[in-house]
Amino acid sequence: MSKIRVSIIGITGYTGLELLRLLLAHPAVEIAHLTSRQHENTQIGTLYPHLAHLDLAITNTSPEEAARDSDVVFLALPHKTAQDVVASLHGKVKLIDLSADYRLDDAEIYEKYYGIPHNHPTLLQEVVYGLPETVGRAPVTAAQSIANPGCFSLLSQLLLFPFKGRIKRANIVAVTGSSGAGKSPGEGTHHPVRNHNMKSYNINGHRHIPEIIRAGDITAEQLNFVPTSGPFTRGIFATAFIELKDAEARPPAETARAAYKGSPFIRIMPNGEAVALANVTGSNFTDLSFQSGADTMIIAQGVLDNLVKGAAGTAIQNMNLMFGLPETDGLLNLSPLYP
Amino acid sequence: MSKIRVSIIGITGYTGLELLRLLLAHPAVEIAHLTSRQHENTQIGTLYPHLAHLDLAITNTSPEEAARDSDVVFLALPHKTAQDVVASLHGKVKLIDLSADYRLDDAEIYEKYYGIPHNHPTLLQEVVYGLPETVGRAPVTAAQSIANPGCFSLLSQLLLFPFKGRIKRANIVAVTGSSGAGKSPGEGTHHPVRNHNMKSYNINGHRHIPEIIRAGDITAEQLNFVPTSGPFTRGIFATAFIELKDAEARPPAETARAAYKGSPFIRIMPNGEAVALANVTGSNFTDLSFQSGADTMIIAQGVLDNLVKGAAGTAIQNMNLMFGLPETDGLLNLSPLYP
Amino acid sequence: MSKIRVSIIGITGYTGLELLRLLLAHPAVEIAHLTSRQHENTQIGTLYPHLAHLDLAITNTSPEEAARDSDVVFLALPHKTAQDVVASLHGKVKLIDLSADYRLDDAEIYEKYYGIPHNHPTLLQEVVYGLPETVGRAPVTAAQSIANPGCFSLLSQLLLFPFKGRIKRANIVAVTGSSGAGKSPGEGTHHPVRNHNMKSYNINGHRHIPEIIRAGDITAEQLNFVPTSGPFTRGIFATAFIELKDAEARPPAETARAAYKGSPFIRIMPNGEAVALANVTGSNFTDLSFQSGADTMIIAQGVLDNLVKGAAGTAIQNMNLMFGLPETDGLLNLSPLYP
Amino acid sequence: MSKIRVSIIGITGYTGLELLRLLLAHPAVEIAHLTSRQHENTQIGTLYPHLAHLDLAITNTSPEEAARDSDVVFLALPHKTAQDVVASLHGKVKLIDLSADYRLDDAEIYEKYYGIPHNHPTLLQEVVYGLPETVGRAPVTAAQSIANPGCFSLLSQLLLFPFKGRIKRANIVAVTGSSGAGKSPGEGTHHPVRNHNMKSYNINGHRHIPEIIRAGDITAEQLNFVPTSGPFTRGIFATAFIELKDAEARPPAETARAAYKGSPFIRIMPNGEAVALANVTGSNFTDLSFQSGADTMIIAQGVLDNLVKGAAGTAIQNMNLMFGLPETDGLLNLSPLYP
Repeated sequence: MSKIRVSIIGITGYTGLELLRLLLAHPAVEIAHLTSRQHENTQIGTLYPHLAHLDLAITNTSPEEAARDSDVVFLALPHKTAQDVVASLHGKVKLIDLSADYRLDDAEIYEKYYGIPHNHPTLLQEVVYGLPETVGRAPVTAAQSIANPGCFSLLSQLLLFPFKGRIKRANIVAVTGSSGAGKSPGEGTHHPVRNHNMKSYNINGHRHIPEIIRAGDITAEQLNFVPTSGPFTRGIFATAFIELKDAEARPPAETARAAYKGSPFIRIMPNGEAVALANVTGSNFTDLSFQSGADTMIIAQGVLDNLVKGAAGTAIQNMNLMFGLPETDGLLNLSPLYP
Repeated sequence: MSKIRVSIIGITGYTGLELLRLLLAHPAVEIAHLTSRQHENTQIGTLYPHLAHLDLAITNTSPEEAARDSDVVFLALPHKTAQDVVASLHGKVKLIDLSADYRLDDAEIYEKYYGIPHNHPTLLQEVVYGLPETVGRAPVTAAQSIANPGCFSLLSQLLLFPFKGRIKRANIVAVTGSSGAGKSPGEGTHHPVRNHNMKSYNINGHRHIPEIIRAGDITAEQLNFVPTSGPFTRGIFATAFIELKDAEARPPAETARAAYKGSPFIRIMPNGEAVALANVTGSNFTDLSFQSGADTMIIAQGVLDNLVKGAAGTAIQNMNLMFGLPETDGLLNLSPLYP
Repeated sequence: MSKIRVSIIGITGYTGLELLRLLLAHPAVEIAHLTSRQHENTQIGTLYPHLAHLDLAITNTSPEEAARDSDVVFLALPHKTAQDVVASLHGKVKLIDLSADYRLDDAEIYEKYYGIPHNHPTLLQEVVYGLPETVGRAPVTAAQSIANPGCFSLLSQLLLFPFKGRIKRANIVAVTGSSGAGKSPGEGTHHPVRNHNMKSYNINGHRHIPEIIRAGDITAEQLNFVPTSGPFTRGIFATAFIELKDAEARPPAETARAAYKGSPFIRIMPNGEAVALANVTGSNFTDLSFQSGADTMIIAQGVLDNLVKGAAGTAIQNMNLMFGLPETDGLLNLSPLYP
Repeated sequence: MSKIRVSIIGITGYTGLELLRLLLAHPAVEIAHLTSRQHENTQIGTLYPHLAHLDLAITNTSPEEAARDSDVVFLALPHKTAQDVVASLHGKVKLIDLSADYRLDDAEIYEKYYGIPHNHPTLLQEVVYGLPETVGRAPVTAAQSIANPGCFSLLSQLLLFPFKGRIKRANIVAVTGSSGAGKSPGEGTHHPVRNHNMKSYNINGHRHIPEIIRAGDITAEQLNFVPTSGPFTRGIFATAFIELKDAEARPPAETARAAYKGSPFIRIMPNGEAVALANVTGSNFTDLSFQSGADTMIIAQGVLDNLVKGAAGTAIQNMNLMFGLPETDGLLNLSPLYP
């Protein structure tokens, strides 16, 4: 069987590199183009010595040219940059956009959170939000273009989704590893301090909020979202206190188990056991726990690897579905790196 | 002026060692006895090479004998062990107990949370709970014996206390460094995993809960408390979502500022700025932030060094007050170790 | 093509778990038995939640019974325990022993370093030392039983081997991650201290020394070996100062490049570039650098993941060779986890 | 007794901040000026929230003006910048320069290693190299201006000094924490990678080399120096393999003990015990060990906190000596932060 030819536009960031790591381990895939506007035909190992064994070049091939020679194109570009590239490629090749540019379906909310107008507001409706566990497999399978979820929002959505439409309010603390800040050094990722620090930022102002509220069918007024930086490289650890409009007798873990039936990467903890971040590192798994707290509150916790399930891994799940492959291909056999 | 003669009963744990670190930097103090039942007259540097420069011995002097030769005795014993020692010394010497044994004033609640009966229930009322910022300086100054607060509960109390009596409910996530688990290795502090892990434990079952609810004047049914282990050595980082019975117009940071007027170790962040764990390491400071969240919720965050403000530092604040010294002596000049 | 049936005897340690991680990603392998004497028919996810998605049981099947139903057996047992198991299985099934018990070919040296006599001294000659990069592929391919190298010694050997027979003396500092200490908590892996510590141990007394000197064709008197613990989970970072008997004009990196021609997991750094531990994490690669230092000294550095190339990965290289598969099968596509 | 008035020129870097931390705990000192050219009269807590409790301003007071109002001035400026400031203040106030500009006594070597000519070559002879443990107390006590040693070189010197004049050659690996790279974020201190990385840099080209060889009375050709970055915030851990011209029967630890008699911050480990980095964090202590290795080699190891003994702490030792105070004032009571 001929392999799926895959290109990554914007290979130089952590998301692009993680896509490559996963694609190299995928049995049905071959690499077509790895592109970056900053580099002209450079062996990847020259820039990234951890890949020195590969005979693969980074080129400045244009997205359009790469698309013509590919079955699927992953965009790992910064948001704002991705807007026009998606518009230019949509419908011409299977497309998976890992930027934030097509995650929202409302151009006004986009402008509110990202501070710039959206150049292609009508396209927002056509690009499918690619979180199979919440939107279902059918829309992803049928999609021409996919908007891959944001890492914070993805995990938060998975905590809220089982109770969608019934949530009165939710308070979430989500702690992220430093790789979530990307490849460019900055004050927040300066090792001497980050190494033993925790600090929140953008409380109730984070750009992932509109994605989260959609999954819970709530408004921004029903949510407090506290993004927090933690002293580790990979992963997000989130705790949600969820208050329902309607209390119910069924344990929340059962409700969640029913909601995620058929989702092979969601592992719901046996009752009373807590999720642990180290159990998912390097893998596409998300571990979730749900228990009844005091005062009818549900205490929900979740962990994932922000670069895998929070980005590149879900993107490959989406690719698998778009090509009629089992959702788990190339992903299920990649066990967490433990310890 | 003659110095205060101080003994530490149970020097070998992290709390005992941290007391010693602070006392050695205290200008008004001299060490009388450092005791441990496991060691007979051993130079402290033999057991703890980081103190190899000291000419100080660890002895198995009895608490009673140490007390006779001291102005104040710190007990850094495990709970249950401390019960009878406090009873034996109470009234004979100024006493500061860092165990959990006299933190609660109700023997039934003690038995419920600690699993054993309390041998000296009437003494529970006489030992003063030593958190000057919430109970005030007068009771501490007048006390014969002090029960020093638990680290998780201390920080949680400081988040709730400004709103005491007005709290409808509170949901708290508190992330602790590994030194909170003490000096004995265990699965939860095994470096290969702890190094990049986060995991909650004893959700809504932690022994510090009865202390917390007292400071907020709430019941256990109004609180969800999620203790969580983090991949760092020192510190607690806590986030509380607080719902008040009565909304008010005044910004919560102002309410807190008023509540902590005259508390030199409480630093309330300027509005909108987030606390950072690395800003308090090694010092007796607690940084707190309070902001209005969605849906009338207050989002409160706090950080402290669990071994200093969360244990030995507050104990020395208490000592200072008991001896009529400025509360800040020997503590204010110990700046955070940054970075 | 039918798959190779593989059993792991002693699945519960880090080495056993890492073998399983790699074998699950190997396209030509299926798991036969995962055994532990401590557990009777337990789902692996019950003990190891990071593997909760697997439908695989840990059983107390005997090594002999597992061997009868397997094409190859990996022993991940403690040394001393492995001695008799190897003797009992040798010749009956392809066998790869990851313990230290058959790494030396001299029973006296074994007794000197391990403190107990060897029960099967003649077997020491029959079990092949499985480091393909130094012993060559032929002996491994032909072997019935393999002794897999120790992690410290493996990396040190790779630094010395290009200069074998010509070394006057070597001084090595090798820093290891905490996973090298295994799964049982101890003082040396207690997170509060290990988190920001470095400390050497067993200087010139480490059990890997006799393996190292064999690869360099030197005596213990020509080697100083300083094993050191570092504050990270995975990896070894080693620096060797190598003095040759005969200086030569050729740059040492060229000599090494020639020595490792045909070794796909050895990546020799371009001249002047330094190896970095983070470039190999989770993968089977070893990065090496060699440069001429002052006073005719060669400065050689190397990095590997102690659980992969330092243990389970090399074991699977050996397995591949024993079954006539390409040495790289199931390993080359597992890129380093970066960052 | 009136206090010593102290100014810090260049307060905003890690060295300046660490000086301030130590000076605030020094009983004989009061702060005169904290200056930075980048900030005009800013409360220090506004820039550095970990110091929010202080009522101290950062100003852009000129060095000359600060000097007129101070008993001693610490320069915590980048090298090259410090050159002229030292020249302008020398002889007018007691001066302690923590930059690299006056550490060498030879302008040619300075230019070779720092890449720029030295504007004040004759002054190089007048500024005293301030490492009391090797140069003795007398020259420091008598000095007008002090050049404070570099962190890597300081520890390396302490390893070589006991054998000064007798060293045939030395090979050193020194691993530093990330705070050594200073306060500006860069690729080498980007947390996602640094967090679990080790990597050498400037092998045999580091600027601290000329300081090191002076202490050992060797040439650059007799030294290999491998500076290495480690995944921790504070500290240097160094291992030196030292070959003497003349072997001797006396254990090297005894030789070192004699050499450091009267040096209160040098702690020489009991024979056979290894130094541990975590034993000195936050303090001015240096722990050293010396043992006889194979082939007449001495294996010497040392640890220090790069910001304290490696910079600000030694600077305050020098200040104490310049003012006739006990060398240990304000330093000895600052115990290591353990754990």
